[in-house]
Amino acid sequence: MRIRRSLIDLDDLSAEDIREIFARTAAFEREPENASLAGRVCANMFFEQSTRTFTSFNIAEQRLGMHVVNLSPKEMSLSGKGETIEDTAITLGAMGVDAIVMRHPEAGFPARIAGAFDGHVINAGDGANAHPTQALLDIYTLLEEFGELGGRTVAIVGDVLHSRVAHSTIRGLHRLGASVVLIGPECFLPGDYADDGVRVERDLDAAIPTLDAIILLRIQRERFAAMPLSDEEYVAAYQLGERRLGRLRESTVVMHPGPYNRGMELDDSVLAFAGWRYAKQVRHGVAIRMAVLDVLING
Amino acid sequence: MRIRRSLIDLDDLSAEDIREIFARTAAFEREPENASLAGRVCANMFFEQSTRTFTSFNIAEQRLGMHVVNLSPKEMSLSGKGETIEDTAITLGAMGVDAIVMRHPEAGFPARIAGAFDGHVINAGDGANAHPTQALLDIYTLLEEFGELGGRTVAIVGDVLHSRVAHSTIRGLHRLGASVVLIGPECFLPGDYADDGVRVERDLDAAIPTLDAIILLRIQRERFAAMPLSDEEYVAAYQLGERRLGRLRESTVVMHPGPYNRGMELDDSVLAFAGWRYAKQVRHGVAIRMAVLDVLING
Amino acid sequence: MRIRRSLIDLDDLSAEDIREIFARTAAFEREPENASLAGRVCANMFFEQSTRTFTSFNIAEQRLGMHVVNLSPKEMSLSGKGETIEDTAITLGAMGVDAIVMRHPEAGFPARIAGAFDGHVINAGDGANAHPTQALLDIYTLLEEFGELGGRTVAIVGDVLHSRVAHSTIRGLHRLGASVVLIGPECFLPGDYADDGVRVERDLDAAIPTLDAIILLRIQRERFAAMPLSDEEYVAAYQLGERRLGRLRESTVVMHPGPYNRGMELDDSVLAFAGWRYAKQVRHGVAIRMAVLDVLING
Repeated sequence: MRIRRSLIDLDDLSAEDIREIFARTAAFEREPENASLAGRVCANMFFEQSTRTFTSFNIAEQRLGMHVVNLSPKEMSLSGKGETIEDTAITLGAMGVDAIVMRHPEAGFPARIAGAFDGHVINAGDGANAHPTQALLDIYTLLEEFGELGGRTVAIVGDVLHSRVAHSTIRGLHRLGASVVLIGPECFLPGDYADDGVRVERDLDAAIPTLDAIILLRIQRERFAAMPLSDEEYVAAYQLGERRLGRLRESTVVMHPGPYNRGMELDDSVLAFAGWRYAKQVRHGVAIRMAVLDVLING
Repeated sequence: MRIRRSLIDLDDLSAEDIREIFARTAAFEREPENASLAGRVCANMFFEQSTRTFTSFNIAEQRLGMHVVNLSPKEMSLSGKGETIEDTAITLGAMGVDAIVMRHPEAGFPARIAGAFDGHVINAGDGANAHPTQALLDIYTLLEEFGELGGRTVAIVGDVLHSRVAHSTIRGLHRLGASVVLIGPECFLPGDYADDGVRVERDLDAAIPTLDAIILLRIQRERFAAMPLSDEEYVAAYQLGERRLGRLRESTVVMHPGPYNRGMELDDSVLAFAGWRYAKQVRHGVAIRMAVLDVLING
Repeated sequence: MRIRRSLIDLDDLSAEDIREIFARTAAFEREPENASLAGRVCANMFFEQSTRTFTSFNIAEQRLGMHVVNLSPKEMSLSGKGETIEDTAITLGAMGVDAIVMRHPEAGFPARIAGAFDGHVINAGDGANAHPTQALLDIYTLLEEFGELGGRTVAIVGDVLHSRVAHSTIRGLHRLGASVVLIGPECFLPGDYADDGVRVERDLDAAIPTLDAIILLRIQRERFAAMPLSDEEYVAAYQLGERRLGRLRESTVVMHPGPYNRGMELDDSVLAFAGWRYAKQVRHGVAIRMAVLDVLING
C-alpha cells in the first residue's frame, strides 16, 4: 500500500489501493463488528447538512470501536474568535483526534485541512468537487455485479456539472478500466471531458442499448439560480421510466447515489426494476467507510 | 408475544405485552448495563426539542450496547433535495439502522415512517397524539405502588386535549383495568371520552376523596393561540396545593409526566408531599425504554 | 481527599486536591483507555459554542467508558415549557446522569445548577467568570516544565478582564505558590488584583527579562461594544513577536489557552519559538478532564 494519509478524491488512490479497500469492505460485510480502531478518535465535521453520509460514517466509526465526536457548524467557533480553520485542525490533532471526516459547501476545503492536520482527513463531500467514499461504494456495487470493469460501458446520466459524486466516480471508473459515457443536456454537461478519458453523449435513447450500467444523477437545483430547461423537457429527454427500461439489456444495472427525486430523473417503475441496485449501494456504504478508515489509519 | 414491529401508541400492545415490557423493565432496573442489543443501531430523529425524552432514550440505547446516531432536523436533508421522508427511512433501513426513535410536531408522522421503514419505529411523541413510552413509565410507577390496577381510580387532571401523554396513558390504564376519570375545564376537556371507556368530571374538589392516584398535566400554552381562561381561574379550580393535598386519602399517589410548571398545576407543597412520585417516574424512564427496545428488536 | 462534589472554580480545590488531580492526569496520559467510569452517564450541556473544550470532554468521557449525552441549547426545552433549569437538573439526576459538564454565557450559572443537581457539575466556562479545567491544564503544563512553582514568576498578558481562564489560572497559580504578574493596558486590567495576591504591571518590555513563563490571552472582542484601543496600539505595547522573544530568558515558557489570534497577541515567530508549549497544553487537556471526572465521581 502506498496510500496517502488522507482521502480527498479518488486521485489519491491507485487501482491497487482501491482493490485493497474493496477487499477489506468485503471482510467488514462478513463481520461488521470489528474493533480494529478501538480507542482511536474520529471527529465528524459536517458544515453542510447530510443524513445518509453522516449516519453511514457514524455507524462505521462505532462498528470499528472508535470514539466519535460530532461537531456541528454551530459548535465550531471558527471565525467568531479569529482562529483559522487550520489552527482548529492543528488543535484537534494535538488533542488526539486521529481522523476528521469533513463535509463542506466549499470545494477544496477538506484538502486545505488535510494540509494542516496531523492525522487523516476524509472528504465526505466538498461543494461540487468530490465525494470519494460515495463513488467507491458505487464502484464496489458495480464490481460486485460484473467482477471486472474492463470492457464494460457505464453511463452517468444527468447533472454531471454539479455532482461531486459523479466527478469522483468518473475518476474511479476510469482508473479501473471501465468505458465511461456521460449523458445529459449541455447545461449540465458543458465540457467535453476528453481529458478525463470519457465520452460525452447528448442522446440517451441512442445510447441505451449499449450500456452495461447506468448511474442516474439528481438535478442539484440548489446550485442553480434558475433551471436552464423545464422539468418537462428534462423528463422527456433524460428520465429513466418504463419505456426506456424496456429498451435496456436484461443484464443492465441501474444505480443512483441518492437522494433520488421521483418524477424527475426516474419514476416509480425504476424502483421496481430488477436491475435497480440502490439498496445494495446504501448497504455497502457502511462497510466501505469502515474500510477507508481502517486502510488510512491502520495502513 | 404477538407484539407488533413498532410502538406508535399503546393500542399496539395487549395487556400481556405491557406486562412483558414491565417484567423486562424490572430486570433492567436490577441490572442496568446489559448489552442485549450490542451492535444494533438506533437512530434518534427528534424534529421537536426534548431534553428528558432525548436523554432517557440516549442512556437506554447506550446501556443496551447499541450504536447511536443522533439526527437533528438540520442534519435531515429532507425537503431540500426533493426526497420524501419515507425514502429517507428506507435508506436508513438499508444502511443497517435497526430502530428509529422519532419525535415530531405532526400527529401521525411516526406511523407514516413505520409504514415505510424496514425496522422498528418508536414514537417518542407526535403532536398532541401519543407518547407511549412516557405513558408506560407512568403506568409502571402506578403498578409498582398498587400491584394491580383493577378497582383503582386514577384521575388525569388538566389539559387533556393537548396532552399526547394523557391520550396514551388513558388507553394503557383502561387496558389494565383501572377506572379512569378525566378532570378539567371544558376548554381542555371538550369531548365526553365515553368511547375510551372513561369518565369526565369538571369538579376536582368533589372527586378528590375518591382517588387512588392523580396524574397532573401541564397546560400546553404553546398549542393555544390565547389561553381560554385566566391563570387565576385555573389555579383556583384545578391547582393541586396544600389545601387539596389535605383532602386526599393518605395512600393517594400524585404523579406528573413532566416538565411541571410550579405555580400552575401544582405548587411547591406537592414537591414535598409524601405521595409525590415524580422522581420515581423519571427513574423508571430509562429502564422502560430499554425494555421497549429489547422487546421490539429481540422479540 | 476533601474534594467537593462539583468543580465550579479552582477555589473548590486545595493545593493537595490539585496535586491529586495531576497525579491521575499523569496516569491517564500513560494509559489513555481506562474504563474507570464504565456505565456512568455524563451530560454535556453547552449553551455557548465550543470546539476544543467540547471535543476534549467528549474524548475524555469516552476514554473513561462513560455513556455520553450531548445536549445542545435547542434540545434543552427550558423556558419554552415553563420549567426552571434547576428542575431540569433534578430530572437529569433522577434519570441516572452522574455528571453535567456545562458551558454557559452567564457567570454563575453552573454554580446554580450544582446547587440543585444530585450529582457532579463541572464548569466548562461561564461568562467571564471561570474555566477551571483549562486553568488546570495550563498549570499542569507549567509544573511539568518546572517541577515546582514556588519562586517562579508567571506573567498573564492581555485581556485579563474578560478571560475566564485567566481568573481561574490566577487562583490556581497562587495556591501552588507561584508569583503571578498580570500585564496589560488599563482597559483590560482595571483593578489592582491585590486581593488575589498578584501584581499588576503595564509595561511588558520592562518585565520581560524577569519572567519564567508567559501566558498570552486573546482579546475577547465579542465582549466589548467598541475596542478601547486600536489594534496597532495593542500590538506595539503587548504583542509577543520576534523582537520581544529575543529578550526572553532562554528557559522561558510561552503558553496560550487558545484559540489564539495570529497578528494580535502573538505573531508567527511565537509558533516556531522553542518555548512555545501550546500543543502540550492541548494534549494534556483530555487527560486533565479524565482526571477531574475520575476524582469527582470515584473520589
